[in-house]
Amino acid sequence: MSIHPSSRRSPDYEAVLSEIETEIHEEFGKGTVASHIPALARVPPRQFGMSVQTIDDRTFELGSANRDFSIQSISKLYTLLLALGHVGGTLWRRVGREPSGNPFNSLVQLEYENGIPRNPFINAGALVVTDCLLHEDPQAKSTLLDTMRRLSGNPEVDYDAEVAASEWQNSDRNAAIAHFLRSHGNLLCDVDEVLDLYFHQCALKMSCHDLAKTLIPLANQGAGLTGNRHELHPRRVKRINSLMLTCGVYDAAGNFAFHVGIPCKSGVGGGIVGVIPNYLAVCVWSPELDTAGNSYVGTRALELFTTKTGLSIF
Amino acid sequence: MSIHPSSRRSPDYEAVLSEIETEIHEEFGKGTVASHIPALARVPPRQFGMSVQTIDDRTFELGSANRDFSIQSISKLYTLLLALGHVGGTLWRRVGREPSGNPFNSLVQLEYENGIPRNPFINAGALVVTDCLLHEDPQAKSTLLDTMRRLSGNPEVDYDAEVAASEWQNSDRNAAIAHFLRSHGNLLCDVDEVLDLYFHQCALKMSCHDLAKTLIPLANQGAGLTGNRHELHPRRVKRINSLMLTCGVYDAAGNFAFHVGIPCKSGVGGGIVGVIPNYLAVCVWSPELDTAGNSYVGTRALELFTTKTGLSIF
Amino acid sequence: MSIHPSSRRSPDYEAVLSEIETEIHEEFGKGTVASHIPALARVPPRQFGMSVQTIDDRTFELGSANRDFSIQSISKLYTLLLALGHVGGTLWRRVGREPSGNPFNSLVQLEYENGIPRNPFINAGALVVTDCLLHEDPQAKSTLLDTMRRLSGNPEVDYDAEVAASEWQNSDRNAAIAHFLRSHGNLLCDVDEVLDLYFHQCALKMSCHDLAKTLIPLANQGAGLTGNRHELHPRRVKRINSLMLTCGVYDAAGNFAFHVGIPCKSGVGGGIVGVIPNYLAVCVWSPELDTAGNSYVGTRALELFTTKTGLSIF
Amino acid sequence: MSIHPSSRRSPDYEAVLSEIETEIHEEFGKGTVASHIPALARVPPRQFGMSVQTIDDRTFELGSANRDFSIQSISKLYTLLLALGHVGGTLWRRVGREPSGNPFNSLVQLEYENGIPRNPFINAGALVVTDCLLHEDPQAKSTLLDTMRRLSGNPEVDYDAEVAASEWQNSDRNAAIAHFLRSHGNLLCDVDEVLDLYFHQCALKMSCHDLAKTLIPLANQGAGLTGNRHELHPRRVKRINSLMLTCGVYDAAGNFAFHVGIPCKSGVGGGIVGVIPNYLAVCVWSPELDTAGNSYVGTRALELFTTKTGLSIF
Repeated sequence: MSIHPSSRRSPDYEAVLSEIETEIHEEFGKGTVASHIPALARVPPRQFGMSVQTIDDRTFELGSANRDFSIQSISKLYTLLLALGHVGGTLWRRVGREPSGNPFNSLVQLEYENGIPRNPFINAGALVVTDCLLHEDPQAKSTLLDTMRRLSGNPEVDYDAEVAASEWQNSDRNAAIAHFLRSHGNLLCDVDEVLDLYFHQCALKMSCHDLAKTLIPLANQGAGLTGNRHELHPRRVKRINSLMLTCGVYDAAGNFAFHVGIPCKSGVGGGIVGVIPNYLAVCVWSPELDTAGNSYVGTRALELFTTKTGLSIF
Repeated sequence: MSIHPSSRRSPDYEAVLSEIETEIHEEFGKGTVASHIPALARVPPRQFGMSVQTIDDRTFELGSANRDFSIQSISKLYTLLLALGHVGGTLWRRVGREPSGNPFNSLVQLEYENGIPRNPFINAGALVVTDCLLHEDPQAKSTLLDTMRRLSGNPEVDYDAEVAASEWQNSDRNAAIAHFLRSHGNLLCDVDEVLDLYFHQCALKMSCHDLAKTLIPLANQGAGLTGNRHELHPRRVKRINSLMLTCGVYDAAGNFAFHVGIPCKSGVGGGIVGVIPNYLAVCVWSPELDTAGNSYVGTRALELFTTKTGLSIF
Repeated sequence: MSIHPSSRRSPDYEAVLSEIETEIHEEFGKGTVASHIPALARVPPRQFGMSVQTIDDRTFELGSANRDFSIQSISKLYTLLLALGHVGGTLWRRVGREPSGNPFNSLVQLEYENGIPRNPFINAGALVVTDCLLHEDPQAKSTLLDTMRRLSGNPEVDYDAEVAASEWQNSDRNAAIAHFLRSHGNLLCDVDEVLDLYFHQCALKMSCHDLAKTLIPLANQGAGLTGNRHELHPRRVKRINSLMLTCGVYDAAGNFAFHVGIPCKSGVGGGIVGVIPNYLAVCVWSPELDTAGNSYVGTRALELFTTKTGLSIF
Repeated sequence: MSIHPSSRRSPDYEAVLSEIETEIHEEFGKGTVASHIPALARVPPRQFGMSVQTIDDRTFELGSANRDFSIQSISKLYTLLLALGHVGGTLWRRVGREPSGNPFNSLVQLEYENGIPRNPFINAGALVVTDCLLHEDPQAKSTLLDTMRRLSGNPEVDYDAEVAASEWQNSDRNAAIAHFLRSHGNLLCDVDEVLDLYFHQCALKMSCHDLAKTLIPLANQGAGLTGNRHELHPRRVKRINSLMLTCGVYDAAGNFAFHVGIPCKSGVGGGIVGVIPNYLAVCVWSPELDTAGNSYVGTRALELFTTKTGLSIF
C-alpha cells in the first residue's frame, strides 16, 4: 500500500514556522522593491510576515503578519470572484484562461490575440474583469470593500488613498491597455471609471492575517470558517484554484509550481496568497521582488513551508 | 469541519466508467485526426479506450484500452525522466519550466529566448532533452525501450517502424528546430542522430493499459506497484507532476487544468496520460484532436472522470 | 554612351494623363473605403482626381483634382517638417527612420523597441512628432493651418470639424498608443492635447491641386515655385524624400517602390502625394484602399504615370 | 527655372575620392569584423577600397580597390537576377518585396508569414531564390561563376573554397531556415544541395574593381558598357534598384537611404555595391561592420561620396 492522504498526520505547523523564521533571514537583500509608483518604492525592504489559517480554524503566524501592505494584484482574485458571481461563465468570452508567457503588462500578446487577454490575472485581463464588474455593479468600489471586510472579518480594511493617487499619477501603461481593449470592443465602461476602480482595488491595504482568512473558502471547498455561509460552489473553487496555479504568479507559473507546488496569487506589493485544498490558506509578505515580480522572500518561505510540511497538491 | 481527504471514500470507479461509456459517444466527430504524417492520418477516428490503474493495484478499463496506438509526445515524459536520471537539475540550464503560450512547434519564442526552449514538453525542449539523453547514453534507443517494457510490464512494447519512417519523411520542421538549437549551442550530438532517437520515441506503440501502468510511480510518490522498487524520489515526482500540469497539454494548460484539474501529458496520436497523486494513474485514447492538438474525446472523458469521481488536485 | 538624364525630353504630360483617364476606370471597385470613422466611411467610392505640378510651374490635372478630401496621414509629412524646423536632428532621438514591417497602428513593435517608434509616418511616430511640435509651439494648430495655406496658395484650406470630431469618437487606438508612449517617457505634453492636434491635422481637407503645390519644395531642391523663398535645405529635402520612399506608404514600401518608384506619402482618406525630384510634385486621390491602407486606384494611377512618362528615381 | 538634371555638370570624381581618402582614416576602429565564420574573422580590419565605374567607362579608385574579399550577401543580387531570368515575376509568389524590420537571419517573421520570406535579400529569401535557381538550372554553381566572370570582365573570379568550407562548418542557422522553408513547401530541392550553392555564392571572392563593373547594367538602364549587349530590361533595372534601396542593407534601409541616398547591397564581408542610375556604379570595401551588419567605413565613404558629388536619387 502506498501513503494515502488519509494516513497523513496534520503537520506540526508551529515547528515548521519556527524553522522558517530561522532560515528566512538569509534571503533578504536578493530582490528589489517595486518601483513603478513612489508609494511602493518607499516601503522598507527587510520585512517579512506569514499567516497560516487552517480550515479547522487554527492560526499560525510569523513576523509582521499583522502589518498592512498594499495587496496590489492579489486583488485580481476577488474582483474575478465578484464578476463571476454576476455573469458566470460568460466572462470567459472576454478573457482567456491560459498562462501568458509574457510580462504582466505586455501589450504584444493582446494585439496578436485581438484584444482578448490571455487570463484574468495579467493587467489586461484584470481590466476586462474590472470593467465587467463595474458594468454589473456601479457601486463595485464599496461592494469590494464590504466583501474584503466580511471575508477577513476585519471591518477596518480600507483603500490606501495615497497609493491609489500614486497609481493615478503613473497610470499611462494601464491607460494604454484600457484604451486598446476599448478599441477592440472589450471594454464597455468609461476608461477613467474602470481605471479608478482598478487602482483602488490595487490600493487595498491588508495584512497577511486578513488575507489568509479571505482565502478560506478556496481552501475549504467553498465553505467559510463558521460553516454558516456557503461562499462558493465547489466546482468554482476547483477552477479558481487551477487558474491561480497556471496563471497566478505572472510569467513564472511553471517555476513556481515546480518549487512551491500550490495555487497562489501574488502582488507587486510583496504579498502572496495561496491555498492547500482541504488543509489551509496561507499568506506571506515581504517587499523585495524577483525579476518576475513575485516576492523573493515570500516565494522562498512558501517553498520551505511546502517542503517542511510535505503538503503539496502534486 | 470541512471535508478532509481522510474522510473521502474511494470512488466507485466501475460505475463512473460505465457512465462515461454511455456519454462519450456523443463526443465523436468534433475533432480532427492528426495529419502531419500519413501513418497517423490513416487511423480510424471513432475509437476510444480508457484505463485506470489505482496505486493499490486495481484496474478499471473501457473500450479499446488494450489497442496499441502511437504515443507521440507522451514519450517526452519518459525521456525527461531518463535524462534527469543522468544529469539531474543541471538539465534546467538548457531548458525552461514555463508554459509556452505558443504552439508546440513554434520557433518564434525559441529565437526570442536565445535557444533555451520554454519547457521540455514542447518539441524544441524535447529535442534538447533527447540530445542530453543521447549524449549521456549512446544506447538510449534500447534503454528507453527496456524502460517502457519494465514500467508497463509488457515485454512486447516496441517502436513502430512505419511511424518512425513516416516521421523521417516529414522531418523538416523538427530538423529546423534542431539546427536552430545547434546554432545556439544547445544541441551537442549530431542532428540526424538526435532526430532518429526523437522520431523513434514518438513512434512507440502502446495501449492505454500499458501506459497507465508506466505512470504509477508518478501517482504513488515514486514507488512502483509492488513496492519493491523505488522508481523516483518523491520530490522529483511532485516536480514532474507540476510540470505536466503547467506544460503537459501544449498551449492549453490553463483550460485543461480548469476543466480536468489533474497533471496530464498528451500526444497527437490521441493519447493522454494523467495522474491523481495518491490515488491513480489514467490513460485515455481517442484519435480526434482539438485545435490545440489534444485528444478531443480523451479530454472530455477525463473531465467526466474527475467530475464524477470528485477527484481533483484542487 | 548611355542615355543621360540630360538627353531626356520632358514627357508629354497631357497625353499621359489622357491615357490614364481612359484606363483608370477599370480599377474602381477593387478596394474598400476607410471605415475606421463614420465621416470617412460615407465618402462615395468611385471618385478620382490627379494633379501634376511641375517645378517650372505647369499644372496638369484630371477628374476631381479640385475636390477636397480628408488628407489624413499625408499630414504627417508637414508636422514632421515643422517639428524638424524647431528641433532639427535631435528629433531622431525620439523616433527612428526604419520601415516598420507592421501595420501602421501596431503596438507590438513599439513595445519591443521600448517606446521609440520605428519612423515618423506610423501613428506612434507621428504622435511623437506631434508632441514634439506642440511642445515647441503651443499654437501649432494655427501654425499648421497657416503653413498649409501658404504652401498651397489657398487661403481657404481648413480643418474639417466633423472629421476631427469623428476621430475623437474613435480615438481609443491612438489614445492607447499615446499613453503607451507616455509610459516610456516619449510623450511630454498632455495626451488629450496631443490627440487634439493629431486629430485636427488628420482632418485637414484639401484637394489634389492644393496638395501638389505644397510638395513643390520637396521636388525642387527646397525652393518654392517663385524662387523667392527657400523653404527647405536641399539636404533636408533629400532626407525627407528618402524617408517617404522607405516609410511613406505604411507596410507596403517595398512593393510600392517596386511598382511606382518615387517617394510618396499616403493617407487613408485615399490621397497620395509624391515627388519626382527635379521634375514635379503629384497628388492623386481615390477613396478605395488596398489592404495596406493605400488608395488602390491612386496607386495604379501613379504606376501608370511613372511607366508612361518613363520618370522614376531608379 | 529650377536646376534640371540636364544642367548638372559631371562631378570631379578624382577630387572627391581624394578628399574621401583623407577623411576616411578617422573612421577605422568603430566597427567589428564579422565573426560568424573563422575565415572571415581572420581578415585584418583596417583596410579600405573603393571603385567608381561610370556608365561612360571611366574608372576612379581608391585604396585596396583591387584586393579580393568575400562578397557574402552581395551575391544575393546576382542569384536574384539569374532566377528572375528563368521564372520572371512568378518568383514573387515565393518571396516578398518588403523590408523586414528584423535581423537578416531571423526566423520569427518567417513563421508569422507562413514561410514566405519578406524579401530576397534576407537569408531566408535568398535561400528561396537559390532553390528556385537550382531547380531551373542544376549547373547553377558554374553558371553563376561564368556570369560573374563575364560581367566583371575578370576570368579569374572564383569561389573561395576555404570560406565555403567554413560556412559549411557553421551552417546550422541557415540549415534551420532551409528546413523551415521546406516544411512550408517553399523549398523544392534537397536542403544540402541548396546550402551548397548558397555557401558557394557567399564565398565568391572579388575586388571592388570587379564588383563595380558587374553593376553597370543596373546603372545604365540595363545596357552593359560596350553597348553590344542588352543585359537587363529597363523595367527590371528600376525594380531591382528599388528593391536594393528598400531591402538591400539588412535592417538599416531607412537610415541608409537617409544618409547615403542610393540603392545599395551589402555583405558581411565588408563590401557594399551601389548604383546612381544614369551615372555610375560604385563598390566600397572595409571589413569592420556596424551593428546592422553593413561595413561601417564603407557606409561612411558612400555618404561622403554622395554628399561631395551632390549625386543622389532623391
